[in-house]
Amino acid sequence: MELISSNRSFGGWHKRYKHHSSSNDCEMTFAIYLPPQTSEGKKVPVLYWLSGLTCNDENFATKAGAQRVAAELGIALVMPDTSPRGSDVADAGRYDLGQGAGFYVNATEAPWQAHYQMYDYVVSELPALIEAHFPVTQHKSISGHSMGGHGALMIALKNPQAYQSASAFAPIVNPAQVPWGELAFSEYLGDDRSKWLAYDSCHLMREAKQMLPILIDQGDQDSFMPLQLQPQALEQIALARQWPFTLNIQLGYDHSYYFIASFIEAHLRFHAQHLVL
Amino acid sequence: MELISSNRSFGGWHKRYKHHSSSNDCEMTFAIYLPPQTSEGKKVPVLYWLSGLTCNDENFATKAGAQRVAAELGIALVMPDTSPRGSDVADAGRYDLGQGAGFYVNATEAPWQAHYQMYDYVVSELPALIEAHFPVTQHKSISGHSMGGHGALMIALKNPQAYQSASAFAPIVNPAQVPWGELAFSEYLGDDRSKWLAYDSCHLMREAKQMLPILIDQGDQDSFMPLQLQPQALEQIALARQWPFTLNIQLGYDHSYYFIASFIEAHLRFHAQHLVL
Repeated sequence: MELISSNRSFGGWHKRYKHHSSSNDCEMTFAIYLPPQTSEGKKVPVLYWLSGLTCNDENFATKAGAQRVAAELGIALVMPDTSPRGSDVADAGRYDLGQGAGFYVNATEAPWQAHYQMYDYVVSELPALIEAHFPVTQHKSISGHSMGGHGALMIALKNPQAYQSASAFAPIVNPAQVPWGELAFSEYLGDDRSKWLAYDSCHLMREAKQMLPILIDQGDQDSFMPLQLQPQALEQIALARQWPFTLNIQLGYDHSYYFIASFIEAHLRFHAQHLVL
Repeated sequence: MELISSNRSFGGWHKRYKHHSSSNDCEMTFAIYLPPQTSEGKKVPVLYWLSGLTCNDENFATKAGAQRVAAELGIALVMPDTSPRGSDVADAGRYDLGQGAGFYVNATEAPWQAHYQMYDYVVSELPALIEAHFPVTQHKSISGHSMGGHGALMIALKNPQAYQSASAFAPIVNPAQVPWGELAFSEYLGDDRSKWLAYDSCHLMREAKQMLPILIDQGDQDSFMPLQLQPQALEQIALARQWPFTLNIQLGYDHSYYFIASFIEAHLRFHAQHLVL
């Protein structure tokens, strides 16, 4: 693990690292925010943040303003990249497939399967690395935006024992049924749509044996909502299953980081209710 | 004036505009954050933010997290670009001169004087435009970072009747004496160093007839501090003159937006003490 940069932020430290990922068989970059409590020898819980299409570890770190509240609450933030990267990693020359668009799945199809194993990376490899090298507890929650909202909800629904809570901003909740997901899943997972359901939050919530608290915020002026996002599809399942679930429709807000910054404090305080601080 | 974009942010609106600037004789872009109080018909005071080298109107808008506190306090934020721009505007092919590096002066020397009239733009043209088109009062304060910290302090010291307060993050306080300023001022103002003093905050504070409150934050791990910034030079003059002046040296902080984000709330609350809200 190699330190790329270190910036003091709200009394803690924002650090970027690169390391060889065995899951993705390439070099990966991630960022971690260590709140000031860790300087006093305390171990803190972790919120994992999964970013959306085109992003890397830096978008949330620089634009969301989450460090302020994480510093107050004593929560570490871990921000992985959105895909494997590098000149020998398959790419598609478009924003919604390939590098920057890993969709947090384990690809089974060529040419993607050699490196695109983001599910294993986020669920297993990265938490093991974080817990081995930083002053954190095993308590963790997970959040994300858009494609990363899909990743956060899907990963939490598949691993409810591993996360205390999950939240999302403008998530893709039903990737097996919308254009972004159909393109990515057909490439990464093949044409057999039944295999897509293993990564579809609507399907996973319908079949779930164990619940965990979920919070979603969605802007009503988000141009991607009608076709790609449709959070009401997940809300209907949550209502039918009496799931601990909140969907806030925020009037006037769009898909940008201005939206995320406006509500990230509420998400951190939601997770703080479920994490041992 | 043409609207470029509009994003809902903390209950208010972050908007970007372009317009023809008569001062700079080119198209200029600026951003304004209108806090939620303006939706209720209230006029609010304005904090002008001047960015540093290489920045435009977007860096502070996306990275500082200032909208949250501006929304709470009821202060509009106005964020101009750092220089004239365009294919017919002189440039130098380097980060510290030309486009992105206007230093907030009125250039007198060729080839710069045709468009580089940023002092007039920030002091006169832009406030007149803002006050004509947006629900703001004439109460204003000014802040900035690095080259923009120089701009904010210099402009406030030259116009103490026009601003209620001034603040800066890691400002260039003595541009007539440090390499960044020597390069820019010799190009924009010519080789007669006596003309540089009109834009040098140390000189201006020494000669000032009217005081206004000033707050400066400076990271002690800022690699530019020893050679380019030297805020203690201004502090010594302030002490000698019994100026209402605070210089906070922040341990461990660098020159980045992580530093600005960590202390922007304190700067907004400082300005709120001096503005009629």
